[in-house]
Amino acid sequence: MPHAPTDTLERRHARIRKALRDAGLDAVVVSAMPNIAWLTNFGGSSACVVLAHDGLRFITDSRYVTAVHETRQTPHECPGLDLVVVDGSYDATLAEVLKAGGFGRVGFDAGHLTVARYRWLESAVGSGDGCPALVPFEGAFEAARSVKDDWEVTLFRDAGALLAEVTGTVLRLPRAGMSERDLALDIDSVIVRAGFQKPAFDTIVASGPNAALPHARPTKRILGEGDLVVLDFGGVYDSYCVDLTRTVVVGQPSARAREVHAAVLEAHDRAIAVTRPGLSRFAVDAAARDVLTAAGMGAAFGHGTGHGLGIEVHEEPRIAKRAPNVDASRERLEAGMVFTVEPGAYFPGWGGVRIEDDVLVTPDGVELLTAAPTELLTV
Amino acid sequence: MPHAPTDTLERRHARIRKALRDAGLDAVVVSAMPNIAWLTNFGGSSACVVLAHDGLRFITDSRYVTAVHETRQTPHECPGLDLVVVDGSYDATLAEVLKAGGFGRVGFDAGHLTVARYRWLESAVGSGDGCPALVPFEGAFEAARSVKDDWEVTLFRDAGALLAEVTGTVLRLPRAGMSERDLALDIDSVIVRAGFQKPAFDTIVASGPNAALPHARPTKRILGEGDLVVLDFGGVYDSYCVDLTRTVVVGQPSARAREVHAAVLEAHDRAIAVTRPGLSRFAVDAAARDVLTAAGMGAAFGHGTGHGLGIEVHEEPRIAKRAPNVDASRERLEAGMVFTVEPGAYFPGWGGVRIEDDVLVTPDGVELLTAAPTELLTV
Repeated sequence: MPHAPTDTLERRHARIRKALRDAGLDAVVVSAMPNIAWLTNFGGSSACVVLAHDGLRFITDSRYVTAVHETRQTPHECPGLDLVVVDGSYDATLAEVLKAGGFGRVGFDAGHLTVARYRWLESAVGSGDGCPALVPFEGAFEAARSVKDDWEVTLFRDAGALLAEVTGTVLRLPRAGMSERDLALDIDSVIVRAGFQKPAFDTIVASGPNAALPHARPTKRILGEGDLVVLDFGGVYDSYCVDLTRTVVVGQPSARAREVHAAVLEAHDRAIAVTRPGLSRFAVDAAARDVLTAAGMGAAFGHGTGHGLGIEVHEEPRIAKRAPNVDASRERLEAGMVFTVEPGAYFPGWGGVRIEDDVLVTPDGVELLTAAPTELLTV
Repeated sequence: MPHAPTDTLERRHARIRKALRDAGLDAVVVSAMPNIAWLTNFGGSSACVVLAHDGLRFITDSRYVTAVHETRQTPHECPGLDLVVVDGSYDATLAEVLKAGGFGRVGFDAGHLTVARYRWLESAVGSGDGCPALVPFEGAFEAARSVKDDWEVTLFRDAGALLAEVTGTVLRLPRAGMSERDLALDIDSVIVRAGFQKPAFDTIVASGPNAALPHARPTKRILGEGDLVVLDFGGVYDSYCVDLTRTVVVGQPSARAREVHAAVLEAHDRAIAVTRPGLSRFAVDAAARDVLTAAGMGAAFGHGTGHGLGIEVHEEPRIAKRAPNVDASRERLEAGMVFTVEPGAYFPGWGGVRIEDDVLVTPDGVELLTAAPTELLTV
């Protein structure tokens, strides 16, 4: 579970309540677990919250009742929490809470609630006088979570420093003759023994031609002379995710490997250098992309430059290429945003390079959270 | 990625197409990744499928294009696959595919698609003559996936045998003085080195009073004399999940520990013994629950008796308590279903016991997939 102090949670509740008032809503059904964790510090996997102006109904099942009680009267207690234990099903219990609440208009997270749950809930709360009307409520949590509060900024500095330290150890692990899978296991072990709760995602070890697949899974392939090896790993620290990639070479790098690595590193450095509040997130992507395009590798960089980090490993802001079909809302960077910068270049059959760090947007510009070596290391 | 043979995929497509015809639909939008993996053997994390009567449009982004091409002309190739690379966003590309398809009525997975995506998609495909109508399509994938085909049954026998073998190793790991977290890491390493792709979920090691939390996360707590320790772990085997729990005791068990363990084991054995095709899934739960209730531990068993296993670690059938608010559809067990049997008893402040195995419903009764010792072992 996250350990945000109670007064931090109070400010988060106030922020969402203000958005509710602006939208003319009496309450909001919060169904997405990351939003629930952010609002309440709950670390379990099943719950539903109804945040109203006068309190917070916290619906969970018997498995988590003890865990919720254990946070009472701690410095991390969720303010105003009224525990409701599930009777039968979550949605049936939620419908009862909504009917008993005397609410007029109730928002729901249209970006999370499924059509089936929405239809069921709508019929269960009924319609007509005294029945709550369900209204889509989008973007408020994403916007609020994308700008980290002081407690989160401190946490990200600690988590980034720990990941940089882990990286020092990880970069000494690869050697010719190991399998990708064994190396990935060793990396996971380093991550957890260093103090992370767990890896933030399935660790990627992609060697030789496998490095051409940006989302490769570790295989039994043995690392051999001349291989480029992409190492992409991260950790969960007090429920928040950090994420880093380095590409190393086994033995002597070819001239082409040096060239691709240098271009990707320049793209990475350039994107970080331009980052500051007020800039378009598309401009950060363009800064990286322009470098690779100038190097003749534009077509080899098929993904976006980065993604926000938080309770989820992929969240806002999305550092992507501006395009007609790409959502352009919430375009400007703000101080407090935390995201990855991870350009790459991938050549099917040959291999690839990716270099990734995590940055914090500061009032003046940018702060690198994961200060670890970026040169092409030989293992 | 899963490696179902092409003819197995063909039979799955045929089954869903029959459900489409029965519902008067020309095609279905498949947005849930486990359904996509089941239909196509795709193992990545982002894709969308439109299954029509004459083919299968497979929408994915540039990261996965090479991986999709690599399955061409292999024995696991997805039949009729027409690759569409995302242009801008998945949903915009999906809308183009739907508009170009000449479809009348198109189903969508109402249990997965969010209200926001549905509303966007509905406006993007337009309305009126020549525009496809979007229609909720529920339950067909869940029903089809809950009954395993021959290829899956063979896979589950292999995966269950491997998990039982892993359990033999795991049960020799715990010792007084270890932390829960280090023990969990060691278990994960055993799982992956044995040949599983990865752990199927976050391994649970819950010792002493922590064992009273059914979904505890491993902490820095040190295992000490007299502790009950719940070990709940699983593995992913060719994309399918298996899951097992044992409870061990550090040093000499108390009389109460023996008593609780014996009652939970009897509940576990009883639930497996009654399992057969045609039985209600609620009756399997009742078989376990009645044993614990008779032992005065009914209130200490707060969760359901089990859950289906497959590409997801929790799927149908749900082996739960019958109650007014619990979904009672698809109640009868069928040969080919695979699920966990995992009764437990939890006492806040004291600790708990859970024993879990995986079973296959056979034409005649039941087959235990995870044959590993169930007695209370002292470590």
